Formats: sequence, C-alpha cells, structure tokens
Amino acid sequence: MAAGFNEEKRAGKGPQSSYIINPHLDSMKEDILYHFNLGTATHDLPAMFGDVKFVCIGGSPWRMRSFIQYIAGELRLSDPNADFPDICAGTDRYSMYKAGPVLSISHGMGIPSIGIMLHELIKLLHHARCTDVTIIRIGTSGGIGLNPGTVVITKQSVDATFLPQFEQIILGKKVLRSTDLDEKLSEELLQCSKKLNEFDTVIGNTMCTLDFYEGQARLDGAFCSYTEEEKQNYLEEAYTAGVRNIEMESSVFAAMCKLSGLRGAVVCVTLLDRRKGDQMTSSHDTLNDYQMRPQKLVRHYIKKQLNVV
Amino acid sequence: MAAGFNEEKRAGKGPQSSYIINPHLDSMKEDILYHFNLGTATHDLPAMFGDVKFVCIGGSPWRMRSFIQYIAGELRLSDPNADFPDICAGTDRYSMYKAGPVLSISHGMGIPSIGIMLHELIKLLHHARCTDVTIIRIGTSGGIGLNPGTVVITKQSVDATFLPQFEQIILGKKVLRSTDLDEKLSEELLQCSKKLNEFDTVIGNTMCTLDFYEGQARLDGAFCSYTEEEKQNYLEEAYTAGVRNIEMESSVFAAMCKLSGLRGAVVCVTLLDRRKGDQMTSSHDTLNDYQMRPQKLVRHYIKKQLNVV
Repeated sequence: MAAGFNEEKRAGKGPQSSYIINPHLDSMKEDILYHFNLGTATHDLPAMFGDVKFVCIGGSPWRMRSFIQYIAGELRLSDPNADFPDICAGTDRYSMYKAGPVLSISHGMGIPSIGIMLHELIKLLHHARCTDVTIIRIGTSGGIGLNPGTVVITKQSVDATFLPQFEQIILGKKVLRSTDLDEKLSEELLQCSKKLNEFDTVIGNTMCTLDFYEGQARLDGAFCSYTEEEKQNYLEEAYTAGVRNIEMESSVFAAMCKLSGLRGAVVCVTLLDRRKGDQMTSSHDTLNDYQMRPQKLVRHYIKKQLNVV
Repeated sequence: MAAGFNEEKRAGKGPQSSYIINPHLDSMKEDILYHFNLGTATHDLPAMFGDVKFVCIGGSPWRMRSFIQYIAGELRLSDPNADFPDICAGTDRYSMYKAGPVLSISHGMGIPSIGIMLHELIKLLHHARCTDVTIIRIGTSGGIGLNPGTVVITKQSVDATFLPQFEQIILGKKVLRSTDLDEKLSEELLQCSKKLNEFDTVIGNTMCTLDFYEGQARLDGAFCSYTEEEKQNYLEEAYTAGVRNIEMESSVFAAMCKLSGLRGAVVCVTLLDRRKGDQMTSSHDTLNDYQMRPQKLVRHYIKKQLNVV
C-alpha cells in the first residue's frame, strides 16, 4: 500500500477465505441485502451462489441481461435464446443474472450506486462462501485522444486531479484508499484482445468523476462557467497524466477490490473522443456495436479461463 | 448567497425565463439529452413538455410509475387504471411519466445519478420553454430520533460534517455551492401535512452522503472499522446539528435548484431509526405504506395548487 494511505487490513487468511473486513457481521443473526432483495434468513445463498467464479458488472440492466444470454450461449451452458430470470426481481434497484459460474449485475450510474452494490455483493460472496472470484466492470466512457470504439483497460483509476486515490468519508472524516488494480489480470485481458484482433484496446489511466457534465469539463450541461479553451487545456493535462478515458465508477470499484482482496479489472469502451466533442452523436447501431466490445473481450477471457474452446 | 460560496449567477431575467447558466447551449444546432433518449432535433419538446408545472422525482422507477397513476387519478386527468407509457422507453437509465402538468421521473441512487438527470431535466425545461416549475424529491431515508414512518421536509441539506454546502469539482478545482431550499415551499408542504393529519411530519436538516454503509456509520457493510459506540456518537453529533434524516441525493438537488432558480423541496420518509439499527427489518407492507406518505403529501399540495378539491 502506497505511503500516505490509511492503514486498513483485510480480515481472514487470504482472498480465498473472506472478502469482508467487518467484525460486526458475524454476530448478526440475519443479514438482509436490502438493495438485492436477498437475505441470509430468506435465501440459501451458498446453494444459489457458491459456484460463482466470475462477476461481470455494468451500469445498464438491459446490457447486463444481454450479457448473460451472450455468455451462456458462448459457454454452451444453455440455449442462447433461453430466458434468465432476474434474481433481484423483487426490487428495481439492481438486476442480477446467473449462468453457471458467471454472475452479471447492473450497478446504475455513479460511485454511490456502484458502492452500495459492491458492499452487498461482497457480503453475498462471503455468505455464499465463494472463493477465487474475479470481478470485471464492463462499461462505457468518454475517451481522450483515442478513436471512438477503442477499449481501455484501466491501469489506475485517478481522481479529478489525476491522483490514484479514492476519498471515502467515514464518521465525517476523510480516508484515502488506493485505487491500484490487478496488473496481471489487466495484462491477461490485453492479451485476449490481441488474440481477438477485432478492435483497438489500450491500457491506460481512467479518470473517475462524480459528475458527467461540469465534472468532466463538458460544455453542454445546464451549467457551464468555463470556455472551450479551458476545457481543452484540462483534457490535455489529463492526457499528459496518462488518462485515456473518463467514467464514473472505477475509483470506488478499484478501492473496494483492493481492500476486499477481490481480483478486479475495469474494461470500458470509449463512445466518443472528448477532444472533439461532448455529445454522443454516433448512430444507435454504432453505439451498440461499441458497447459489445468489452463483452466480447471478457467472453474471450472467461472462455480461456474455463478451457472452453 | 452565504459568504464563502463562489459567486455564480443565473442567466436570464428570472425563474420564469430560463433555468440554465450556459452561454454555449444557444450556439448548439442540436441538443441530445442522451440519458433521457430525447433531443431537440428528434422531439418537439415544447409540445411534449411546455405545460409542465410540477416535477416529482424519486430513486425507484417503479415508485415513480405508481406515483403518476396515483396523481392522474387524484387530479381526475384519466382513468386511474390507465397505462402511462415511459417517455424514456428507449433507455434504461431513467424512467419518465407525464399526466397533465405533472412530470414523474426516476433518478437512481446517489448524487452522480440524480445530477445527470437534473442537468438534462433543466435543459429539457429550457428547451420546452417551461415557466414557474416546482420540483419535489419524494424519497426514502434513514431517520435519527424519529419514529419510523415519520416524513422529513428538508430545511437544509448538510454534508458529513453537518455544513450546508455541496462540493462540485469543476476542471479539477473544488467549488462550494449553497444547499438552501425554498423556505416558503417547505412551510406550505408542512401545512399540507397538518391538514392531511395521517402521519407525523417534521422540518429538519437532511444529511446527504456519498455512501450508504461506511458513509452513514452503518455497522453492517462489507467493511467497518468503527465501534457501535463511535457510530452512536456520530449520529448524536448529527442530531445536535439538527439532522433528522440521512439520504444520498438532497445536496446536489438543493444546489442545482438554487443555481437554476427552480423552486425545490425534499420530502423523504424515514424507514427506520438509525439509533436503533441499520437494517430494514420492517415488513414489505409496512415499508410500502411508509413510501406512500411523501406521495400523499405531495398529491395534497399539487391538488391545492391546482384548486382540485
């Protein structure tokens, strides 16, 4: 852990034994995973989830539903047209689908929304006694200096001042957490992309913001107090700091992976080059094609891990 | 505007003429409201939305759909069993429904998610040339020192250190915005609740956090580094600062209302007393009953404004 970060240590003996760091959890008679509409007293979580090895997450419920159909077909787990029930059907906060060892979950938009989901997912994996889990965010982003449709595998998630840290507020005080991701996993994903050879993929830093408009230097929000030149200068500074894309979830994802010991990666396609514009003007079909790219890459990775040819 | 806040001024002549502060918008040939799947070149926004006077927003798409059916029946705008199509049907980011002058929109969970929605909503109201609009967030929250089911009308939205401010990052720099809400509107809503006389309602401060677990001093997240006593002390400090409930959207809502000139209020029911626990253990029916309370209150207010008896 880099100097300057608060000392926080994981409980348990290693990533295989527990992903949680909370001495209070074991004394609870029941744990309600409220935003999943699941719970230890109402559901047999080990039976439902004990075999999970890959968790793929993304903002949109529709995309995560289409991903599970796609991966189930590819892994020959079922008829590709089979229907997959939403495991979180009792709530509209998140959607969750499962096919064999693969779990697909939507997380909504922004750090708080993915944060709630990750707290409950990490507890779910703990209650279900899952081991050796890999989690990959497959998302969309704005690119800097890349052709639209390029896929970025995140090296480090950086904040709006380009530092690789996530600020968590606990009891009103700021705690800084490292946003380093698993280098080996990122490298393996890059190799998968090279073998696929269907679209450009790079490893780069990802800037994670709390806002889509003013927070990402867009000129087309309801409010804007800066000039086009100031926007371009800011994006140039980001580029110089190694930032290749901008999204809204990677920092808390990376911090929670590092803290819990989950092996995690962020794979996002760029929908536009922010140097050239702010609005998503590509056609619906083009944007859909772009959004399939992280799915294709992760499909290839999972098939390789499971030795499915 | 309180001393210490950056000077930011609204464009236009007053709340009736424009809600935006962005000199770039007028020079754009087209404005795509990407997360609504609406745009100025593809939709006749003045015809679709020009008559909107009340915008009610909440986290859950299901709740906002049931609200529009409820309000349409109450305002005798349609058969209460009529179906209302989702105006944002082409995207799963938000859901939007309309009945006469009332718009009902879901905003997901957390500041970033509601922030994107509000940017696009404020632009929508501008493009549709709407005037004299009132916006009310009807949500859920955790209470402090109140019986579960009590409704809190927000006086000020405060941060995790109990200050009435919202921190917006612009080009990597922090800008503090005031979170004062419309006092007159809050008072009118309180009077409506007194007339209704069906449940307890109070005016109090609302703490807005970026995280549901560690950020709200819960003991039941995946990570917890503090004791029950430290949790209780923090909640006690919050109570002393006038905080009566905790949620995750009010600060950016209040800041964007104040900046745009939209008349706004936050009306949230408390689902539990955080002094007594962290988990939502009430029955499904009880939680549903609680969630109807802000809807009932706002229904009463809108009927009064429209002189529907």
